[in-house]
Amino acid sequence: MDKARAKELLEAVAAGNLKVDEALLQFQTADVTDIGYAQVDHSRAMRQGVGEVVYGEGKTADQIWGICKTMLEAGQERILITRLDAAKAQELAGVFDLDYHEAARIGIIGGLPQPNGNGTIVVACAGTSDLPVAEEAALTAEVLGNEIVRLFDVGVAGIHRLLSHTEDIARANVIIAVAGMEGALPSVVGGLASCPVIAVPTSVGYGASFDGLAALLAMLNSCASGISVVNIDNGFGAGYQASMINHVKTGRGE
Amino acid sequence: MDKARAKELLEAVAAGNLKVDEALLQFQTADVTDIGYAQVDHSRAMRQGVGEVVYGEGKTADQIWGICKTMLEAGQERILITRLDAAKAQELAGVFDLDYHEAARIGIIGGLPQPNGNGTIVVACAGTSDLPVAEEAALTAEVLGNEIVRLFDVGVAGIHRLLSHTEDIARANVIIAVAGMEGALPSVVGGLASCPVIAVPTSVGYGASFDGLAALLAMLNSCASGISVVNIDNGFGAGYQASMINHVKTGRGE
Amino acid sequence: MDKARAKELLEAVAAGNLKVDEALLQFQTADVTDIGYAQVDHSRAMRQGVGEVVYGEGKTADQIWGICKTMLEAGQERILITRLDAAKAQELAGVFDLDYHEAARIGIIGGLPQPNGNGTIVVACAGTSDLPVAEEAALTAEVLGNEIVRLFDVGVAGIHRLLSHTEDIARANVIIAVAGMEGALPSVVGGLASCPVIAVPTSVGYGASFDGLAALLAMLNSCASGISVVNIDNGFGAGYQASMINHVKTGRGE
Amino acid sequence: MDKARAKELLEAVAAGNLKVDEALLQFQTADVTDIGYAQVDHSRAMRQGVGEVVYGEGKTADQIWGICKTMLEAGQERILITRLDAAKAQELAGVFDLDYHEAARIGIIGGLPQPNGNGTIVVACAGTSDLPVAEEAALTAEVLGNEIVRLFDVGVAGIHRLLSHTEDIARANVIIAVAGMEGALPSVVGGLASCPVIAVPTSVGYGASFDGLAALLAMLNSCASGISVVNIDNGFGAGYQASMINHVKTGRGE
Amino acid sequence: MDKARAKELLEAVAAGNLKVDEALLQFQTADVTDIGYAQVDHSRAMRQGVGEVVYGEGKTADQIWGICKTMLEAGQERILITRLDAAKAQELAGVFDLDYHEAARIGIIGGLPQPNGNGTIVVACAGTSDLPVAEEAALTAEVLGNEIVRLFDVGVAGIHRLLSHTEDIARANVIIAVAGMEGALPSVVGGLASCPVIAVPTSVGYGASFDGLAALLAMLNSCASGISVVNIDNGFGAGYQASMINHVKTGRGE
Amino acid sequence: MDKARAKELLEAVAAGNLKVDEALLQFQTADVTDIGYAQVDHSRAMRQGVGEVVYGEGKTADQIWGICKTMLEAGQERILITRLDAAKAQELAGVFDLDYHEAARIGIIGGLPQPNGNGTIVVACAGTSDLPVAEEAALTAEVLGNEIVRLFDVGVAGIHRLLSHTEDIARANVIIAVAGMEGALPSVVGGLASCPVIAVPTSVGYGASFDGLAALLAMLNSCASGISVVNIDNGFGAGYQASMINHVKTGRGE
Amino acid sequence: MDKARAKELLEAVAAGNLKVDEALLQFQTADVTDIGYAQVDHSRAMRQGVGEVVYGEGKTADQIWGICKTMLEAGQERILITRLDAAKAQELAGVFDLDYHEAARIGIIGGLPQPNGNGTIVVACAGTSDLPVAEEAALTAEVLGNEIVRLFDVGVAGIHRLLSHTEDIARANVIIAVAGMEGALPSVVGGLASCPVIAVPTSVGYGASFDGLAALLAMLNSCASGISVVNIDNGFGAGYQASMINHVKTGRGE
Amino acid sequence: MDKARAKELLEAVAAGNLKVDEALLQFQTADVTDIGYAQVDHSRAMRQGVGEVVYGEGKTADQIWGICKTMLEAGQERILITRLDAAKAQELAGVFDLDYHEAARIGIIGGLPQPNGNGTIVVACAGTSDLPVAEEAALTAEVLGNEIVRLFDVGVAGIHRLLSHTEDIARANVIIAVAGMEGALPSVVGGLASCPVIAVPTSVGYGASFDGLAALLAMLNSCASGISVVNIDNGFGAGYQASMINHVKTGRGE
Repeated sequence: MDKARAKELLEAVAAGNLKVDEALLQFQTADVTDIGYAQVDHSRAMRQGVGEVVYGEGKTADQIWGICKTMLEAGQERILITRLDAAKAQELAGVFDLDYHEAARIGIIGGLPQPNGNGTIVVACAGTSDLPVAEEAALTAEVLGNEIVRLFDVGVAGIHRLLSHTEDIARANVIIAVAGMEGALPSVVGGLASCPVIAVPTSVGYGASFDGLAALLAMLNSCASGISVVNIDNGFGAGYQASMINHVKTGRGE
Repeated sequence: MDKARAKELLEAVAAGNLKVDEALLQFQTADVTDIGYAQVDHSRAMRQGVGEVVYGEGKTADQIWGICKTMLEAGQERILITRLDAAKAQELAGVFDLDYHEAARIGIIGGLPQPNGNGTIVVACAGTSDLPVAEEAALTAEVLGNEIVRLFDVGVAGIHRLLSHTEDIARANVIIAVAGMEGALPSVVGGLASCPVIAVPTSVGYGASFDGLAALLAMLNSCASGISVVNIDNGFGAGYQASMINHVKTGRGE
Repeated sequence: MDKARAKELLEAVAAGNLKVDEALLQFQTADVTDIGYAQVDHSRAMRQGVGEVVYGEGKTADQIWGICKTMLEAGQERILITRLDAAKAQELAGVFDLDYHEAARIGIIGGLPQPNGNGTIVVACAGTSDLPVAEEAALTAEVLGNEIVRLFDVGVAGIHRLLSHTEDIARANVIIAVAGMEGALPSVVGGLASCPVIAVPTSVGYGASFDGLAALLAMLNSCASGISVVNIDNGFGAGYQASMINHVKTGRGE
Repeated sequence: MDKARAKELLEAVAAGNLKVDEALLQFQTADVTDIGYAQVDHSRAMRQGVGEVVYGEGKTADQIWGICKTMLEAGQERILITRLDAAKAQELAGVFDLDYHEAARIGIIGGLPQPNGNGTIVVACAGTSDLPVAEEAALTAEVLGNEIVRLFDVGVAGIHRLLSHTEDIARANVIIAVAGMEGALPSVVGGLASCPVIAVPTSVGYGASFDGLAALLAMLNSCASGISVVNIDNGFGAGYQASMINHVKTGRGE
Repeated sequence: MDKARAKELLEAVAAGNLKVDEALLQFQTADVTDIGYAQVDHSRAMRQGVGEVVYGEGKTADQIWGICKTMLEAGQERILITRLDAAKAQELAGVFDLDYHEAARIGIIGGLPQPNGNGTIVVACAGTSDLPVAEEAALTAEVLGNEIVRLFDVGVAGIHRLLSHTEDIARANVIIAVAGMEGALPSVVGGLASCPVIAVPTSVGYGASFDGLAALLAMLNSCASGISVVNIDNGFGAGYQASMINHVKTGRGE
Repeated sequence: MDKARAKELLEAVAAGNLKVDEALLQFQTADVTDIGYAQVDHSRAMRQGVGEVVYGEGKTADQIWGICKTMLEAGQERILITRLDAAKAQELAGVFDLDYHEAARIGIIGGLPQPNGNGTIVVACAGTSDLPVAEEAALTAEVLGNEIVRLFDVGVAGIHRLLSHTEDIARANVIIAVAGMEGALPSVVGGLASCPVIAVPTSVGYGASFDGLAALLAMLNSCASGISVVNIDNGFGAGYQASMINHVKTGRGE
Repeated sequence: MDKARAKELLEAVAAGNLKVDEALLQFQTADVTDIGYAQVDHSRAMRQGVGEVVYGEGKTADQIWGICKTMLEAGQERILITRLDAAKAQELAGVFDLDYHEAARIGIIGGLPQPNGNGTIVVACAGTSDLPVAEEAALTAEVLGNEIVRLFDVGVAGIHRLLSHTEDIARANVIIAVAGMEGALPSVVGGLASCPVIAVPTSVGYGASFDGLAALLAMLNSCASGISVVNIDNGFGAGYQASMINHVKTGRGE
Repeated sequence: MDKARAKELLEAVAAGNLKVDEALLQFQTADVTDIGYAQVDHSRAMRQGVGEVVYGEGKTADQIWGICKTMLEAGQERILITRLDAAKAQELAGVFDLDYHEAARIGIIGGLPQPNGNGTIVVACAGTSDLPVAEEAALTAEVLGNEIVRLFDVGVAGIHRLLSHTEDIARANVIIAVAGMEGALPSVVGGLASCPVIAVPTSVGYGASFDGLAALLAMLNSCASGISVVNIDNGFGAGYQASMINHVKTGRGE
């Protein structure tokens, strides 16, 4: 959107000729670059308060390169690429300054920012097999400006491992609880915490785990209050929402 | 089976003319009374080591009366009637000396025996809504000669309620863990215990609990070792197996 | 927990003889009143940062009365009773000063507090049939000290109804999006908002909605970022977590 | 069917000796060529109003060759081959004049015809991953004589991308809305359109998308009127029905 | 929307100051009456090309009365009320001139219009138990201005009953095929027809029909081309889309 | 079982010392050869009236060789090996005189016998993709002594293809109807036939066919009488039962 | 169909002017009486070899009366009414000479015929709760002219009860095995029998029986050969097919 | 935990200053070695009464090596590695003295101990395809000090194979019954046994076995008493619990 049109719109709002809702919508509509195989959205930062994310799965290295290039040219400082396999990461690393985290399948262009959230985010996971999803959540939140405390391998069948971290849990601003199999971790954590808990079921398990369905259902039925759930293996979604929560505007209600 | 036939069979075994397997099978086949709507099985005690149980659901008070009468006449001392609703219990109470436990929907003829098991059975349940199923389990085990420790309302979202009973859990010979919703109790209990845990999912919950499916799947996927699972709301089955475990013959392996 | 014991614990912590984790756990364990059919937990406020809630379903009016009495005697100022049907509400209204909201099946003892959250919570619902669940969410959050903006009947099949509230959405600190049938509302709202969205599937629908399963799955698979999901019809859970998010504290992580 | 038999049948109808239904059925039965592994049906055009389509999956290149050859010899002008992988396409391209569209896995013999439908068909898809299915729908409809407007990557989480095409939607005669994940696109499109919408769920997604089940259920439960649904990933089916709708004849009901 | 504002908008479009998309959206947004429990939408006719429909389920007779009154006052000529039970119908019949069809649970205010579609719509159903859903479809289409041919009880297990109507099928502009149990009717009809077929699964059946799931899945997997599917028991949805198809603008492509 | 023991048993029966049931059971128990990885059962012919079958899946070529050798040595004339892949078939063909049918994945040692059943068995399948399962059924029945009429590619979307075989269907003693996708073939066939129909769902299809579930459910819900169903892709099971039906002892009821 | 038309058709066949298939189809199409709410089919006996059956569920007593009256007037000797509840039975008993079997919910007009099948049909059921379904199967087969041997309450958990009937099983021409819960009876029976076994899952059970789904799946996966399955609780379907099998004609294939 | 701290704790208990529960928990918490990718738990033996087990799936050979090394250094005598594939086993065999059982995918370091349980454990499986799971159960129990009786290939479709082992069944202290497909073995075994039966469903089967779901549901619904169930293919879990049962202590309840 060029300056003239923006000014026009704002003047119309000021004069009472354009409703705020309509103006907002027009601003949002304005800044999309169409590069053929994708519509790159530059005003998303305004709309959602964060930078751009590229979902790597199902895209070729070339397509990812094209999207990132468009973004960087538009002034984007930092890009998070999720579900990026090692082969594509290697191709991209030749072009961009890319930090690649293999377990989490995450690539980061532009490095990690200084944390600027309200407090800390605890990322807890039940078993070592849940680690990739937990790392996806942790790195996502770090890229979005959060300080992370990692509590890994603290599953409920050895409850003392979790209880030895009661203090971290009590101090957190948000907690992400990652678990496969019976998915019980969020319930126990939720009972110990006084902050929101985002539960992430993983596809870890076999037989009647039905690729994470058992953990998903368990988490949706948690008897602890203050828990919500994201899709199976969706570490990114949990990290993203946790960051939003940790950046909630404070002090307005007082 | 009359005495003569029994003697014949035993002599045949002694003489090596009849294999033990075949003799056993013939004994088992012998003692069934056909009362039209049911085949009452008097040798079950020999086969399974316990007295007879009547599943009350789907039977009229008259049919239950008929089955119990046949059993008592055959010398049965004690009868457990499960899934018995209050109306039928009242009818039967006019005829037999029946102890009725409404929450658990259990009727007992012949009173509770002295416990004669190897140790104690702990019955733990997560919430007050799981109580009827937990009581069905506890009473079943009591009728079968076991000493019960009840730990009710010890769900994992308030983990300290459970942890204050660590000693009971450590001392148990068998534990029955009853829970609806996310069904996490058996996993935590299993991690604290050194004895077998029988998990009982209940239909307590709503929405994505799908009438106990969520708890069932969670329990089948427990990351704790030493846990097995019975059908949803099957307190009887858990109590029955727990009693079998608590009566396992000891000392033979030494 | 009496004062002496509390002092003892704190001194032990101060002297380095007791780890903070262990002390916290002992405080939490201390204050539970056992009233037979329930273990009323007085330190929950410390643990979870909010007052007590009573889940009314499956409890008799007498049991609810007992729990509330125990709480009020322990100094609880305000009690939220969820899933309370009209008949029980009438019985309780004779004893307590109870505000009853029939559509939402919620009873409140002690009135609504002054909002003290960071900002506003928007509660949006797709159709008029989703209203009871939306109201459960809204009232829960109000009892917990939040200012609510209600946007009802703004389903996506008439997208202009939703778009005329773009400003409310842009200003919110948290949004609760309630929908049955195809459950698409959270995705559209999530795309317009810059704050966390809690999605609540409802059992509104028929046929292949499978009692809310369709909406639940849709919400778990939302292509918008920043969305998490609670159980079907769980308005309470959404309101509770939204309040936690709206009360997130600042400056603690530094 | 030879001419004599056809004449005989028609005369019988004219004379009132043969019911129209019976005559129709006999015409339909007449023209099938049995080539061993398939029964090629030459009168399908009469029955269904369109030319022949070959479903390529599970057939060898040789079998597809055989079927196409039989059709061309019978005078078929144009053949659409769906679910045709690149390897088989290459083999067939050596024999026939074949246009191959790799993303959509579609091969066309005989080129595209002039559009002869009543109006335009809009094919909209939510994300770039849904593109292959959307292209299958679009090409199918083009082969069957329709003019297509493609609106790709217009998912509901960025609602303004869709709203900037309101005019195309308002002008369409039929709309095909393709989406995976939460499958919300058809509901929003349905609310904006005044023509029939055919919804196509795709298997795009992961975890609780259950290979397209989430999108399928969402679409079946759409709160917008005028929407019907085809099988997961069935772009062909949607394109085929859209063409039928766009060729609906006028004036017959008067 | 008052005349002045409308004129303003149109002039802005004429002058090139307002894009057509934006103007359309503003027209659509304008005409909604908020009556508390519902937002009655008067411009729907413009948007979707048909009059207003009230979904009766879950609404009280009073609420339905309120909505209808608002509509009639706004100049609506004819109202279709679906899922209306007999009791509510009786209440409404005292106030409005209401035609009530009990089997289909449909109420009509304002009578049936003259058919003005392109041709006829065939509504076929498999068994007498599917009749209520078939009638819902037929009446919906009649209210929307279509001529209907009803073919009831023509299930595939007696294929000759269906074949004796081959001519009606061949002449139809759209066909609605309604079936429960194995849901095979649309496949056979689809093979005989040269027009679009809308398949409606019903919840008729027992056991492994799982309330219509069997029929739904069968219809989604039909091997006949040109078939799409609506929700289980959604006769209204089928009738509505069929009417849209039968009113498709013709002649533009020539 | 050696002759002496057999004689002993029979004399005991004759003398009234052994019940017929017990004697039968002992005969059945007698003739099993344990070859380590399997218990080869030589009296199965007596018990089930047919020769032995080897299920090839999950067995090595060596294991299949061992089982067949044991059988042939025990006097078995003919062996049917199902689910035998081409590689194993090649290995076995070097040792035995094996007829291998690749599409059906069936190997036959000992050739086909003269048909000795009561009548003919029709094997009908809906599409060419269902052919492997249909052939498995047909060959199984041929090995067991039946005359087969094959009707392939007669799916219901081209109903006339099926109707042109009405006479074969009317003459059959048993019909096996094989179909994937919507699984409608058995219903139509069942309506035309006067003999038992065994329905075989196949995993042919995609998306909401859920690997044959759609066809399975459809067949279980068939509105035609006289239909029963076997497992998905279980051509063997259908052929086996069809043979049993075609060999039912006749003439006893007259 | 009147005599003249029938003669015409047959002469056409004789002269080679009409194919046998076409003639058969025309005969079948001819004899249907349309009584408004149903199309009563008089030539079904010719097509399927048995008399007419009325499915009572979802029909009013009046409708059933109408259908039966039409049938009796057309010369039908005997009518089987299934799923007939006691209230409707009482109404019909005032008009027709009706034998009503309450447990099986079956009404019979015209009494039981002399058995004329090839042999006996064994109907076995696992528990007393399965009895209604077993009786539906048995009575259906009796009405269709079969001699039945009933083996009730012979579930596999007391295997000796079943084994004491080995002789009946060995002598049967067809066996119907009815079971709920784990549905294991058909597998054991199938292993003992040398005739076809029709398995009937029942909805008896609770929790993870999912209304008969567990039994249905078990039966479809039976490791015994010669078993096929009908819908949950479909005693009628099993009895009907069993009768067809028991009436299989001999010598036709030669 | 060093000796001093342990002494301190015990003295506090003795003096009544520390509750037994709290002391137990602190002992449990003490002995965990954190090796980065796992928290190796040395006090598990005290807690659960058995040595340590390593779940090999999803771990690299290096990680398994690290965990085993840490354990052996901590004095662990014997280690059981489950789900260990052949490639990793070969790597580990170069470092440790490892017994590898390929079918069961189990590796054992430290050899088998002398049995010290109360009696024997019977491991029965239905078919040869269930053997790997059965062996996993058997070897697990052997490593944990139990005497095993293996009864393989005793499926219920050849009931005499099972009945010939009635004596082993009657003598067992615990029985593990392993079966895929219809999962009926535990029901029959449960009826013959007087000890607890642990049922293990396997993923053996195809089509409607849904990877073991059919067997799992069947086992959960067993009509025999005394049966509980573990996850699909979870031979380890069954062996582990069976060992616990076979080591139940006596005399504590008296």
